[in-house]
Amino acid sequence: MIIAVDAMGGDHAPSAIVEGAVLAAREGDVEVILVGVDEKIQEELDKHDVDQLPIRIEHAEQIVDMHDAPGKVLRSKRKSSIKIGLDLVKAGSADAFVSAGNTGAVLAFSTLILRPLKGVSRPAITVQLPTLQGSSLLLDAGANVDCKPIQLFQFGVMGHAFAKYIIGKEEPRVGILSIGEEDGKGNEITKEVFHMLKKSHVNFIGNVEGKEVYRGNADVVVCDGFTGNVALKISESLAEMIGKNLKAMFSRNWKSKLGYFLLKDQLAEFKKKVDHSETGGAPLLGINGVCIIAHGSSSPKAIKNAIKRANELAEKKINDHIREDIESNLADLDLGIWKQIKSAFVPDSLEDDKKTEEEVVGEDETGGDEAPSTSEKDKDV
Amino acid sequence: MIIAVDAMGGDHAPSAIVEGAVLAAREGDVEVILVGVDEKIQEELDKHDVDQLPIRIEHAEQIVDMHDAPGKVLRSKRKSSIKIGLDLVKAGSADAFVSAGNTGAVLAFSTLILRPLKGVSRPAITVQLPTLQGSSLLLDAGANVDCKPIQLFQFGVMGHAFAKYIIGKEEPRVGILSIGEEDGKGNEITKEVFHMLKKSHVNFIGNVEGKEVYRGNADVVVCDGFTGNVALKISESLAEMIGKNLKAMFSRNWKSKLGYFLLKDQLAEFKKKVDHSETGGAPLLGINGVCIIAHGSSSPKAIKNAIKRANELAEKKINDHIREDIESNLADLDLGIWKQIKSAFVPDSLEDDKKTEEEVVGEDETGGDEAPSTSEKDKDV
Repeated sequence: MIIAVDAMGGDHAPSAIVEGAVLAAREGDVEVILVGVDEKIQEELDKHDVDQLPIRIEHAEQIVDMHDAPGKVLRSKRKSSIKIGLDLVKAGSADAFVSAGNTGAVLAFSTLILRPLKGVSRPAITVQLPTLQGSSLLLDAGANVDCKPIQLFQFGVMGHAFAKYIIGKEEPRVGILSIGEEDGKGNEITKEVFHMLKKSHVNFIGNVEGKEVYRGNADVVVCDGFTGNVALKISESLAEMIGKNLKAMFSRNWKSKLGYFLLKDQLAEFKKKVDHSETGGAPLLGINGVCIIAHGSSSPKAIKNAIKRANELAEKKINDHIREDIESNLADLDLGIWKQIKSAFVPDSLEDDKKTEEEVVGEDETGGDEAPSTSEKDKDV
Repeated sequence: MIIAVDAMGGDHAPSAIVEGAVLAAREGDVEVILVGVDEKIQEELDKHDVDQLPIRIEHAEQIVDMHDAPGKVLRSKRKSSIKIGLDLVKAGSADAFVSAGNTGAVLAFSTLILRPLKGVSRPAITVQLPTLQGSSLLLDAGANVDCKPIQLFQFGVMGHAFAKYIIGKEEPRVGILSIGEEDGKGNEITKEVFHMLKKSHVNFIGNVEGKEVYRGNADVVVCDGFTGNVALKISESLAEMIGKNLKAMFSRNWKSKLGYFLLKDQLAEFKKKVDHSETGGAPLLGINGVCIIAHGSSSPKAIKNAIKRANELAEKKINDHIREDIESNLADLDLGIWKQIKSAFVPDSLEDDKKTEEEVVGEDETGGDEAPSTSEKDKDV
């Protein structure tokens, strides 16, 4: 498989990205196209022995900054590594795209260029969390802020497919993130999704409370992007706080320093278990193509793993599975909600989605910084 | 001050509750009324030397189970320790109420018996989280699932008052929990609240991302009860997972056991820092009386601290401060949102709120298990 990699995105770009690509190429199986500013990438490649490696450069003169508003980027950064990398996927010149850059921009460009899969309203960012039972998926982690029930339903079906065909869980347990386990608990949206998922073909286990997430009692945790983003970021925040406290503790005096020395190997092992750089980034599920969003602070190892994950998703044809599952599940949904489904396929706010790429770029440059195909909602990651 | 304590609520009731009350009474300053089944409380009291302590029993024959639906409890458990304890506050025989029991039931009874403060739509559960800078408040942690913007505005004002007059922070920084720091980020509700809090007298610092919470960059973190509950519970879940992994690590071999032994004191110190039993429970802010919700798994120490916190809130007249701050802030709010405020004072779904307590009990017992004055929203804690 050929993986296009955004060489310019991420806190440590391009060095960490290029090094990650080299590591992935060395392990075999993948060809890498590094997309970005030619000479900068070459400079980094020169630091490695890449003579026999299947790595090539695709020049892209523009760089998307981490703080650029996605809507603006769509119009003003059409020669960026993100746009050109996704174009390669669209054209079939690459099988997948990986970026550690501006998430909102990746989301906006991929929705515009690759388009959502048939039957999917919006793509969802899917993160893999470490749990007491191994790992679980949480989606959406921030692509869609204000969600309709049908979207959460789709997230459930997509997460189920990912857990089954990629992670390899036989009958993934799908739950809705809520504030009580009982059927009637939740907010207006989760209560509606509950009934929809209950009728679906997925192994639906009902509501999952926050306290169950890291116990691993659900393989797929479904939520809107606002809740998912808060849950994910607050987890990172807590882990950071605990980590900093432990670190301070370990270096306080000779006794604690010795204690740390004795525990070092096992602490490293635990750190590896919960390290996001091991999970290979967050796939953007529901898009017609494979797109992986890596953490902004990705290390070379994280990039390597994201490339391998992208390769796996493309090889195992994740989108064929999602397409089939969405179709069979939607077919069985109560006709009573047909209207809702229809409205979710063509939400009012998404009328602009019908515009072609050309129409979008042709628009007045001063037309605001909103993405035509992705409202404010999509930027908040 | 006289504190009424629900002796029958909590995983370790009545033993842990009675012991906590004894500890609090021994430290002076408070008189405790233990509310619950007379002989069971007496049995526990007999285990302690309480001769000179200002502790007495108020008999309540019914016990609210942790799984009882709050609506049902309102009608069928009118002789419960929760109801009778809150009646004592209402009558002025006690200055505050503490319970580690069924949160939904405490919420429902306190809203019905004590009523919300003037200018407050609904009370909010206010938790104190440990952070890198000490501690921060998060509200609402689960009392109100689907919130209107005006409610979050009130949470901000109430949290500000609590941080200022009880925690003692001079100019508490109030932020809205959202998914990006920039002004325009968030969901439909947070965006509206943003503009309201910006106009308020509180020291509003804008949006706060999940990753900032445990860094302590806001003293008061405002969110709806669904998001707050998920954030709180997922934090507990992650802490549990990390704790279990560390524990397993410490006992793996002689080296790690020795390492643990050397670090023991400092680990205990850290545990104390993040232990919820130290924070004295979660005040239900916005109710016309002082009511503290303690964690279901409260230890005697946690109950002692909750009683002391209740005492402090009553002594420092937290509700006078909230009333004043709500009034002055509401007065300054744009008239354009007056309609919204009004609708929040008397939300459609709350028409039943106008019923008196007597009317509620007089209703058909088979009338469902919904709390008349508290919709489904209030039960989900």
